[in-house]
Amino acid sequence: MKTQGIAPELLEALDRPLVDHHCHGVLSAALGRPAFEQLIVEGGLAAPPGTTHFDTPVGLAIRRWCAPVLDLPPHAPPADYLARRAELGPDEVNRRLLRAAGISVFCVDTGLDAPATADPAAGGLLSPAEMGAAGGGAGGHEIVRIERVAREVAERAPAAGAYAEEFAEELFRRASDAAGLKTIIAYRCGLDFDPWPPEPGEVVAAAAAWFAGYRVESRLADFDPWPPEPGEVVAAAAAWFAGYRVEPRLADPVLLRHALWTALAVAREYGLPIQFHTGLGDTDLRLHRANPVLMTDFLRAAQPVPIVLLHCYPYVREAGYLAAVYPHVYLDCGLTVTHTAAASATPLAESLELAPFHKNLFSTDCYGLAELCHLGALYFRRGLGALLADRVRAGEWSLPDAVRIAHLIGGDNARRIYRLDR
Amino acid sequence: MKTQGIAPELLEALDRPLVDHHCHGVLSAALGRPAFEQLIVEGGLAAPPGTTHFDTPVGLAIRRWCAPVLDLPPHAPPADYLARRAELGPDEVNRRLLRAAGISVFCVDTGLDAPATADPAAGGLLSPAEMGAAGGGAGGHEIVRIERVAREVAERAPAAGAYAEEFAEELFRRASDAAGLKTIIAYRCGLDFDPWPPEPGEVVAAAAAWFAGYRVESRLADFDPWPPEPGEVVAAAAAWFAGYRVEPRLADPVLLRHALWTALAVAREYGLPIQFHTGLGDTDLRLHRANPVLMTDFLRAAQPVPIVLLHCYPYVREAGYLAAVYPHVYLDCGLTVTHTAAASATPLAESLELAPFHKNLFSTDCYGLAELCHLGALYFRRGLGALLADRVRAGEWSLPDAVRIAHLIGGDNARRIYRLDR
Amino acid sequence: MKTQGIAPELLEALDRPLVDHHCHGVLSAALGRPAFEQLIVEGGLAAPPGTTHFDTPVGLAIRRWCAPVLDLPPHAPPADYLARRAELGPDEVNRRLLRAAGISVFCVDTGLDAPATADPAAGGLLSPAEMGAAGGGAGGHEIVRIERVAREVAERAPAAGAYAEEFAEELFRRASDAAGLKTIIAYRCGLDFDPWPPEPGEVVAAAAAWFAGYRVESRLADFDPWPPEPGEVVAAAAAWFAGYRVEPRLADPVLLRHALWTALAVAREYGLPIQFHTGLGDTDLRLHRANPVLMTDFLRAAQPVPIVLLHCYPYVREAGYLAAVYPHVYLDCGLTVTHTAAASATPLAESLELAPFHKNLFSTDCYGLAELCHLGALYFRRGLGALLADRVRAGEWSLPDAVRIAHLIGGDNARRIYRLDR
Repeated sequence: MKTQGIAPELLEALDRPLVDHHCHGVLSAALGRPAFEQLIVEGGLAAPPGTTHFDTPVGLAIRRWCAPVLDLPPHAPPADYLARRAELGPDEVNRRLLRAAGISVFCVDTGLDAPATADPAAGGLLSPAEMGAAGGGAGGHEIVRIERVAREVAERAPAAGAYAEEFAEELFRRASDAAGLKTIIAYRCGLDFDPWPPEPGEVVAAAAAWFAGYRVESRLADFDPWPPEPGEVVAAAAAWFAGYRVEPRLADPVLLRHALWTALAVAREYGLPIQFHTGLGDTDLRLHRANPVLMTDFLRAAQPVPIVLLHCYPYVREAGYLAAVYPHVYLDCGLTVTHTAAASATPLAESLELAPFHKNLFSTDCYGLAELCHLGALYFRRGLGALLADRVRAGEWSLPDAVRIAHLIGGDNARRIYRLDR
Repeated sequence: MKTQGIAPELLEALDRPLVDHHCHGVLSAALGRPAFEQLIVEGGLAAPPGTTHFDTPVGLAIRRWCAPVLDLPPHAPPADYLARRAELGPDEVNRRLLRAAGISVFCVDTGLDAPATADPAAGGLLSPAEMGAAGGGAGGHEIVRIERVAREVAERAPAAGAYAEEFAEELFRRASDAAGLKTIIAYRCGLDFDPWPPEPGEVVAAAAAWFAGYRVESRLADFDPWPPEPGEVVAAAAAWFAGYRVEPRLADPVLLRHALWTALAVAREYGLPIQFHTGLGDTDLRLHRANPVLMTDFLRAAQPVPIVLLHCYPYVREAGYLAAVYPHVYLDCGLTVTHTAAASATPLAESLELAPFHKNLFSTDCYGLAELCHLGALYFRRGLGALLADRVRAGEWSLPDAVRIAHLIGGDNARRIYRLDR
Repeated sequence: MKTQGIAPELLEALDRPLVDHHCHGVLSAALGRPAFEQLIVEGGLAAPPGTTHFDTPVGLAIRRWCAPVLDLPPHAPPADYLARRAELGPDEVNRRLLRAAGISVFCVDTGLDAPATADPAAGGLLSPAEMGAAGGGAGGHEIVRIERVAREVAERAPAAGAYAEEFAEELFRRASDAAGLKTIIAYRCGLDFDPWPPEPGEVVAAAAAWFAGYRVESRLADFDPWPPEPGEVVAAAAAWFAGYRVEPRLADPVLLRHALWTALAVAREYGLPIQFHTGLGDTDLRLHRANPVLMTDFLRAAQPVPIVLLHCYPYVREAGYLAAVYPHVYLDCGLTVTHTAAASATPLAESLELAPFHKNLFSTDCYGLAELCHLGALYFRRGLGALLADRVRAGEWSLPDAVRIAHLIGGDNARRIYRLDR
């Protein structure tokens, strides 16, 4: 961060260890270049021939800011970076980058598996406790992904009529030690879902349909249905079938709503916030259906359970509006800050245009690569620091207020709503 | 405003009294802290336990810019500010802040009542004339809210078949002395309404249904329908019923469209603009349905009646596009500028990205608190001044053009389209 | 461009001739003030009484940057500018402004006719080759507009059952020499179209309905359906009928989708990109239906054909997201940069927040006026130059990377995906 002209009190506030209220585990396995590149981008697809995912804002940021953490000069070429990464090994790389991030608490969404491109034998994702340890003795808490629990219950193949009860039991059990809950309903049916809970009979029928034939899905992104030549059709179909996910993926809107309303009951009982994926994500998403204002009626019905809108880009202002008018709605810019990198001050500033300062949270949303954790924290500190210093310099905000805002967003808000000190 | 490096001609242009083409009355009653805090935010709901609405952009702005108007140092603590406010009394506070705003004409939307949290016996909202007087002899004009007139006609309980004629008569009568009309159809059914007028028979049927049982509504925001424990259900229901609005609230889409098309007739007859609420507002809103591009077909049908898009955030660019391509469409950033406060230069700049300079208008949209009037004018002047000075400094715009643009947006555009000099 | 503090290597990179991957021909006819003013704005409608389209961002930019190219001082008044323009004559004006733009290749969408306000006898739009010649010996390529070819096939009045084959033959023929294809389906039915191809039988039925009575359309923008006085009704109807377009305009969603899927076959066969109009445009558009994320499912189905999202404003970030996660999706800010002019650095910066640097393209989208070409190139260079210099100054990107990014966006990306060097 450019420190000149920033008051020491403010620098000290920004320097304090952060609470990362939403992230995923990083990989303990070594990664070849294709696997590394695919973890740089949200889509996970390979770059077009002749190009590289290093030619992205986050790619340049890795070379600029992570290279020195691995003892390389800033702007080191990708090949040098990956060679040094391999040389140090994943444990040392993770240790260095997670410590450099300066985070005191990791709240880890455990609902994601390791990427398919990584070798499972070589090591999976770090657990919340392992994240904390790698991060220099930070705390590790679990965020339970609602749809993942539903899938795990479905894998036990309960009777359809017993699903609702078994799911509720399991979710209560899993949440009892967790810091919060998380839903990816934005991916599965969009945030324009029916805001009211389904009837019990609907849930039984939907569960029966689900179990009768686990939905066989491919990622459409990998499927090209238009056949100009017979050979291409065969090749595309083969690739498609190979990619089938025969997992019991929860995609039925009735069951998604039921899972969400069950999670509301859990959240009320335990006093937990529920995190919502909103805005940008991978190719499984229709972005316009991940706009958080689409679920305004649900937000009204959900109060007073704290609802945290994650990522938000490009709907950061919409999220800020919701956080401004609804007492139980919060937002963050995790993932957004990392991927916009050198441009991240702009979306971060938008998250501060309207939202109260007690509603904004820091997160990295890192997944797989410890680089994404370091960059998320680094650009958060730089962006927030520059904005606060500007406000103080312009005489708009007092220095004590700016310091207080840095503490609120950097950790105090998360500690309060996740009750991390309990 | 940072005046260094700004040419004196431009400073003089920015300093001129402004025409506030859209605001509401401020309260003549003294306010306790809860009532004051609830008027700071659009939602009107209390801040979560342990937090305060003063920890918002507008809250910090009140402490920074309104405190000195009440003889306090900048950044005075909230308690000091409210104590001083009580000491001076509402008349003096209103007088000081409205004069500090530097406004020569107030166009007041009279369709809102005083907030429920204010003591009606202590004093209501200032009338257009009273706003002008408190503002140091400024002019006061009325903007007639279409849906309010419909409600008042409905309260007379006319025969359903007579409603359309009685409403038209009343609207023509009320508008005959007004500067313009205003609609809040964005709140009541969204701007994605059917762009064509309803058939007369539809209007009669809808009026009959309306009168037969005035729609009994509660604000869903105050209602939590999900019952984890029986006791909570009872308490929530009691709170809900207590909050019933048994007013004849105009919410039927047919009647809303009918009211709007009647207003178009009035506007044509008298040469009046129609203001549309768009973008951010209170919790009665679904933000994505307040995007002004949703009513593109209606805008086409409404020409050449001037249509003024109010507030717009976060759809400022969409509004700018409409103002750029449709000769009868205008926009403002009122409310947006006040609530984004120290960050307001960004949305204000967006309103100037595409829209012609003869299409942009100043307003404060203040309601209840004279602070919101002062801040709306102050941040408008600062934001526009900084932008114009930058353009002149970069050699992009000539100084005379910059001065002319300041005059157009600050008042000349409003004078022209509302024909305030007639 | 402010050159101080910018490294010479970067200045040289920005100075290189650009590839304009999407533009239209400029007019070879002299233009009176009304015709000139109507070409400044996207809507093409006259400014309200007492105002001028010169009071727009692009209007001030013409006076600032084009006046000196015609030997006038910066900020010359509109009347002086137009007098000098008439004095030099269209050929000299076009020659000066197109050369000033510094473009080495024009890819010209030939699907637009000269504006109705221009005198056809005085001269039409320059062809791709003429654009190149006027631009100082630049290359000229054609971009074939899909819907235009469909209209031309329809004008031959084929049997409905033969339409699909005749259209495919014609599109293959026309595209065989072209650099790419272009669709305006955003205008005709919105980007929320059914992503799958229609059945052959549907195409025959839709073609039959189309040919049976060529759709008689007026631009609704010119039509005011609400009749307060009989005289106005008659006048409005007369104006409406006079404006009838009896052309066989392709507006049927089935045929639009069929044309698009045929174009995908052509694009695959010849290795061509398909350009999509997205975002801002004229009054024929409903802006919210031109958001490119609405066609996410189609984008998935279309891969690996390169899809280039044009203009994008205000959905620049949405387009950047798509370009970031889908390997075959590209974007530009043409038209946006020209019309936001002095404010164009903001949307241009947004196009660089998330999109890979190998996905961003330069274009001017000029049409009719050579001024729009010069300004598009000028503000692109200024905006990109300022951003790159900032990144280098902040230590975020290395100078060689910044230079490389300038080359990629300024021309290398277009050369690669349109295979201009073949």
